[in-house]
Amino acid sequence: MQREDTERTEVDRNSGKPLMGVGKAGLKDSGKPDLLIVVLPYPCTCSMLFTQNHFKAGSVIYTQSLAKRSKKLSAFVVNSGNANCGTGREGVEHAKMMAQEVAKHLDLDHQEVAVFSTGIIGEPLPIERVLSAIGEAAKSLRSLDLREASEAISTTDSFPKYSIREKTFGFAKGAGMIHPSMATMLSFVFTEYESDYDTLHSLHRELVEESFNSISVDGCQSTNDSSLFVSLAKEETQKERLRDEAREVFLELAKKIVEDGEGATKLIKVIVKGAALKMKARKVAQSVATSLLVKTAVYGRDPNWGRILAAAGSTEFPIDPFSAKVYMGGHLLYDGKPNPKALAPAQDYLEKVKEVEILIDLQEGKESWTYYSSDIGYEYIRINAEYHT
Amino acid sequence: MQREDTERTEVDRNSGKPLMGVGKAGLKDSGKPDLLIVVLPYPCTCSMLFTQNHFKAGSVIYTQSLAKRSKKLSAFVVNSGNANCGTGREGVEHAKMMAQEVAKHLDLDHQEVAVFSTGIIGEPLPIERVLSAIGEAAKSLRSLDLREASEAISTTDSFPKYSIREKTFGFAKGAGMIHPSMATMLSFVFTEYESDYDTLHSLHRELVEESFNSISVDGCQSTNDSSLFVSLAKEETQKERLRDEAREVFLELAKKIVEDGEGATKLIKVIVKGAALKMKARKVAQSVATSLLVKTAVYGRDPNWGRILAAAGSTEFPIDPFSAKVYMGGHLLYDGKPNPKALAPAQDYLEKVKEVEILIDLQEGKESWTYYSSDIGYEYIRINAEYHT
Repeated sequence: MQREDTERTEVDRNSGKPLMGVGKAGLKDSGKPDLLIVVLPYPCTCSMLFTQNHFKAGSVIYTQSLAKRSKKLSAFVVNSGNANCGTGREGVEHAKMMAQEVAKHLDLDHQEVAVFSTGIIGEPLPIERVLSAIGEAAKSLRSLDLREASEAISTTDSFPKYSIREKTFGFAKGAGMIHPSMATMLSFVFTEYESDYDTLHSLHRELVEESFNSISVDGCQSTNDSSLFVSLAKEETQKERLRDEAREVFLELAKKIVEDGEGATKLIKVIVKGAALKMKARKVAQSVATSLLVKTAVYGRDPNWGRILAAAGSTEFPIDPFSAKVYMGGHLLYDGKPNPKALAPAQDYLEKVKEVEILIDLQEGKESWTYYSSDIGYEYIRINAEYHT
Repeated sequence: MQREDTERTEVDRNSGKPLMGVGKAGLKDSGKPDLLIVVLPYPCTCSMLFTQNHFKAGSVIYTQSLAKRSKKLSAFVVNSGNANCGTGREGVEHAKMMAQEVAKHLDLDHQEVAVFSTGIIGEPLPIERVLSAIGEAAKSLRSLDLREASEAISTTDSFPKYSIREKTFGFAKGAGMIHPSMATMLSFVFTEYESDYDTLHSLHRELVEESFNSISVDGCQSTNDSSLFVSLAKEETQKERLRDEAREVFLELAKKIVEDGEGATKLIKVIVKGAALKMKARKVAQSVATSLLVKTAVYGRDPNWGRILAAAGSTEFPIDPFSAKVYMGGHLLYDGKPNPKALAPAQDYLEKVKEVEILIDLQEGKESWTYYSSDIGYEYIRINAEYHT
């Protein structure tokens, strides 16, 4: 899916705003910028979350160990086009060298520089070229432009991903949980509200659960996923405002990643309501959103409630097939038993809309959860089968 | 994949052997037999296992409640072409009527007649036609022919599935964990060794874990999966012989189901060894075998060890990316770091073989597990997207 954007993308240059610089290390076939440095106005409180995958990129191993020691960052560097993953112990060394190179050029403590990578797995990083691109980027700092920043970290993304609210903004990349040997999602969100680390980190975890951890393109977990949440600390804390703005930014970035899912033709929004437990609502929503049979049914414009219920029933949480209801775009397809009259209007709905809403009402409690995914068709197979390492 | 079979398919007619009869209720577009009755020589000790899915077929709900009350069966009936699932409370009533009809014709206790269904979800069973096909089948009993029995319960299977060892034999159906709204796997295994219920049931659970619970076509769980294990009790118990023969029969049936995976071009055998825990070996093997990215890579003949390790690392069990090894067909692709020399021979191997062996050595212990799956390509999408309810 392509999208048109006419939003404001450049954050005004002011003292206390982040700066950016880009460089080229020749990691992308397109020859476009593949190295981004973002410099924070001073050491800022920063929460970082990483992939749960145990096969982690060298950059993730390095930055995760950094995050354990320090809760402040002065800058971060991202290279795209090479995931620095599956590259042995050398990969961790390379990440450290990247942090040191940034620190050297900008006169910072290298322990306050985080490193992220995204791109192909298993190729050693051409470290000399990367270090020289860092020098190039450090010499051309200017105010952070979210669109350009997103473009510099993109791999096979088909459009840049960013989101702006009043005092909270961010950019991201990602198109499929793992691309053809490409890894995957990176997100960087900044808020001008002041926050101590514990508040920021706990809000970060909460928001990531609702956003990046509630989306799926192919159900595959990446080796490089990272999410950074920075408090630029210019405004007095307004906890509720911070939460509301940040929630909108995280959710917008997450939805854009799903929208850009490999070969996707439709966004799928799965809402589970009426659950006795929130965890149950979430597990059931996830099971439906990640079901290959549900995704191919949506691709084929088939309002197949049988596949939806089979997926909903496959978690460890019991559902009652005699009371559960399934709606598609408001059409009641199943009400403890089939409702064949709804099939034709639901199929019309599927043909027409870009975002397909599936609602499952378990009719047993008050908890709900929403999960986003995309359909899967021939193009996904083409992208993932015809690509060779 | 198609397979040629020249094996013996008819079990000799002897007193004490199961009998079968088939009928036609018009549930299949092909007009082929869609109703099977199997009559046991007397009430036999019988262990039954069912899908864990909570959205269960009416037949499963009925038969599962039967299994709780009785450990002996005199007969069972299977209809194909209609899953009797998502059909409300009426579906359970219909299953009971099927058991009663069999009991009436064969002068049995209906509480000793199990009922299984497989086929399309959400269509009410045309019960009058089904009952009349039961009458037809009951009038034409003859000795059990495994090939014909498998054909009578097949839906979109492309070949019949059966397996014979000295005193243990069985038949099954299934091609994809869930077919286009078709549900799914049924297996019926008989042994002539005598066994008490507890021994038979515990062996059944063990063998199902290694066979039907260690295969995956699309990772989707069915609403109708059932496995029956009957002791015909003619031979004195020889526990080890029983276990060995039954293991071979269960595994052969399970592999045939994967082999018949929708649109599959290759069987994938994933072996995880060197694990500290058996559960860990199993979870890691399952994660690799069910990864859509691994399946599409195999379809594309791409020895993509990065996707294999990303899948292996995505369970809750840590793996060490600096010591794990990945082999494909004996070619060492990754040895704590990439081994690019193995790529070309591994790709040759992928082009040539029908069964692709992926071996992951975690290098930390002595436990292992084997999981079977198949590749996924355009044909899977075609079958599952272009089918409409």
